[in-house]
Amino acid sequence: MIAPASSRQRILGLIREKGRISRVEIAAATGISRAAVTNLTQALLDDGLLIEQAGDGAAAGRGRPRVNLQLNSRAMHVVGVKISMHQIGIALTDFTGEVLDTLIMPYRAGRQAADVTADVVEDAVRQCLLDSSLAPSSVGGICIGLPGYVDSEAGVCHWSPIFKSGDVRFGDEIQRRMGIDTYIENDANLVASAEHWFGKGRGRDCFAVVTVEAGVGMGFVVNDTLYRGAHGVGPEFGHAQLDPHGPQCRCGRRGCVEAYVSDYAILREADGGISIDAYAANPTLYHGRINEITRQARDGDERLREVFQKAGRSLGFALANLVAMLNPPRIILSGDGMRAGELLFDPVREGLADHRPTAPQFEVDLVTHRWGDDVWARGAAAMVLQRLYSRSELRAVGDAAPSKPAPAGD
Amino acid sequence: MIAPASSRQRILGLIREKGRISRVEIAAATGISRAAVTNLTQALLDDGLLIEQAGDGAAAGRGRPRVNLQLNSRAMHVVGVKISMHQIGIALTDFTGEVLDTLIMPYRAGRQAADVTADVVEDAVRQCLLDSSLAPSSVGGICIGLPGYVDSEAGVCHWSPIFKSGDVRFGDEIQRRMGIDTYIENDANLVASAEHWFGKGRGRDCFAVVTVEAGVGMGFVVNDTLYRGAHGVGPEFGHAQLDPHGPQCRCGRRGCVEAYVSDYAILREADGGISIDAYAANPTLYHGRINEITRQARDGDERLREVFQKAGRSLGFALANLVAMLNPPRIILSGDGMRAGELLFDPVREGLADHRPTAPQFEVDLVTHRWGDDVWARGAAAMVLQRLYSRSELRAVGDAAPSKPAPAGD
Repeated sequence: MIAPASSRQRILGLIREKGRISRVEIAAATGISRAAVTNLTQALLDDGLLIEQAGDGAAAGRGRPRVNLQLNSRAMHVVGVKISMHQIGIALTDFTGEVLDTLIMPYRAGRQAADVTADVVEDAVRQCLLDSSLAPSSVGGICIGLPGYVDSEAGVCHWSPIFKSGDVRFGDEIQRRMGIDTYIENDANLVASAEHWFGKGRGRDCFAVVTVEAGVGMGFVVNDTLYRGAHGVGPEFGHAQLDPHGPQCRCGRRGCVEAYVSDYAILREADGGISIDAYAANPTLYHGRINEITRQARDGDERLREVFQKAGRSLGFALANLVAMLNPPRIILSGDGMRAGELLFDPVREGLADHRPTAPQFEVDLVTHRWGDDVWARGAAAMVLQRLYSRSELRAVGDAAPSKPAPAGD
Repeated sequence: MIAPASSRQRILGLIREKGRISRVEIAAATGISRAAVTNLTQALLDDGLLIEQAGDGAAAGRGRPRVNLQLNSRAMHVVGVKISMHQIGIALTDFTGEVLDTLIMPYRAGRQAADVTADVVEDAVRQCLLDSSLAPSSVGGICIGLPGYVDSEAGVCHWSPIFKSGDVRFGDEIQRRMGIDTYIENDANLVASAEHWFGKGRGRDCFAVVTVEAGVGMGFVVNDTLYRGAHGVGPEFGHAQLDPHGPQCRCGRRGCVEAYVSDYAILREADGGISIDAYAANPTLYHGRINEITRQARDGDERLREVFQKAGRSLGFALANLVAMLNPPRIILSGDGMRAGELLFDPVREGLADHRPTAPQFEVDLVTHRWGDDVWARGAAAMVLQRLYSRSELRAVGDAAPSKPAPAGD
């Protein structure tokens, strides 16, 4: 059972969502009494997590000006990391989730031992902090997104294409090196979090995100909470099986969603029989080729347009089954695969319309969202912040730390 | 956003779940202060919703005996109704959800106007109350389960095989006739509720129920709450499409889950081409034939065993995709279709194992639950009670109503 959010946590979450809000508005929105709101926000101010700002009431010149509260962006920093088959992305954000610095670097994770990858992540995080003249002690937490089966609560990556072995406790390793609380998370969940906080899931308590890139992932937010599913690993939409006699999938079976629509599936169709192993051995090379294929298709290459047409219709068919099985109020399509734009999206819509339950109650609100490379890392930052907000003992660190109150009051 | 449950509602829910519980235990389990628990439970006692009972502490002879609280079963009654293609089931329960009386009667709903069905439901509910010597005024609410697309919050049945027209406000009609608050609900949701309160979902905050009978339905409980999905109609697992070139489905498409495994699909395979219309015209007749087919298969008829084998493998394939897309911690198979037992269940397991994502994190906890005909109605009763528990103004009615306190207290 999910523990009900504490009043402190609800207030922090609300202030984050609204940007600026008065105490009166907080009381109205949360149902927490005005007296309790006053006490709780004072504690948050004392802990350096909030700052006050004169509101619009002052301009109107009537009575006492309304004072707005907002998060103290300098209360602490957090770091989001995304490791994919062809690169590592780092984002450093402030306490509100605003990105201060990013670092995207090519890296073939699948070819390296986990220790080597940990070296690279450690160095890159330290570099980001140096570039921004920040000490590690000003960082409240790190979240690392990985493709594969990640049990975030337990801190175990059961399986990932970027690790050669199973059950890697990669977060613990980085935490040991950096001395900063570190979490790991399935990468599609990062996008779901980013959409929830900053994107097309903002203000929504239920939606699904399907990510298309090297693989196909899914995150599902329900009751305002990321859905974890059995064993904490959540859904694995990319391995829903559309046709047991379909094309070969990385997982060893045939006809999984990703075998039709992921980067390697597009490459295989476009360039005739590129093997999954060849792709895994040099994903950066193939990443460039994917971009080229996309450009050529957009420029009118009919054969390549057909490749996207076929992939899109298969994804649409899979989404139709997701609608039948879950009927989420919104589905957000995201990930690098969205670079293909309407080339992919038009046939996705067709496939979905042709195969979903026919009643109007199953007309789905399907949107695409193309983000920069930093989306994953922003989502990771959001996941750290969500955890931090729930800590009753949280205080600002580093520069923004409140000075110790004098033993006898002023 | 779901309104957080009030303290009163949480206490009522906890007492229902535990049967008997002391005030101290309530405070410990809910985190509500002891003083508040004392006040809130006193109000519930005053309103006639709880009764006190001396606990085990008295027997131990040490200090003041611990007093347990339990629901006052006689506080009010509720009525659950399930309308299916071939019968109407009614269950009258007390305030704890215990069944006092049931009435199951054959009825071909699909052939009748909604008004005629309302006549039958009204008469049957009145009959149940008369049989138990209860006045309608002692009934706190009625919930009616229907197959099809039901928006329970809006009180609209958008489509159902039991109605000739769309958008029927059947609950309003019964409420007008009976003078009792009446809700409508998708029938698979009733089973999910029954499992959650009384069955194999008890004490679990997340599980899926898949029901197999005239159609194939699904209910999904997440964060202890029934999932409603887009437009309030929830999932429609029976119309996930396994193969666009598969057998004809009632919905006009081909290859939906129910076209492989529902009662009419089994009949069609067993008896060669029985039409869906013929089945809809006389479901009672075909219901008898289904039971016969099941018996013959169990007695060793190889051809009929093969029919169940094929249906079960298709259902297993569909469940494998449900696991990929949602990975629920438990799936409960329920409904009349479970009458076939291992005939169907063995191939379901095989199909699931062959087609789910292969990692151990997707080994699903699949259980079957065969209930009597009253399960649906018990679930309906649970849904009424859940709504009633959330009402701050709820008081006992009829015999169990508390007498008005004297104007000057003693």
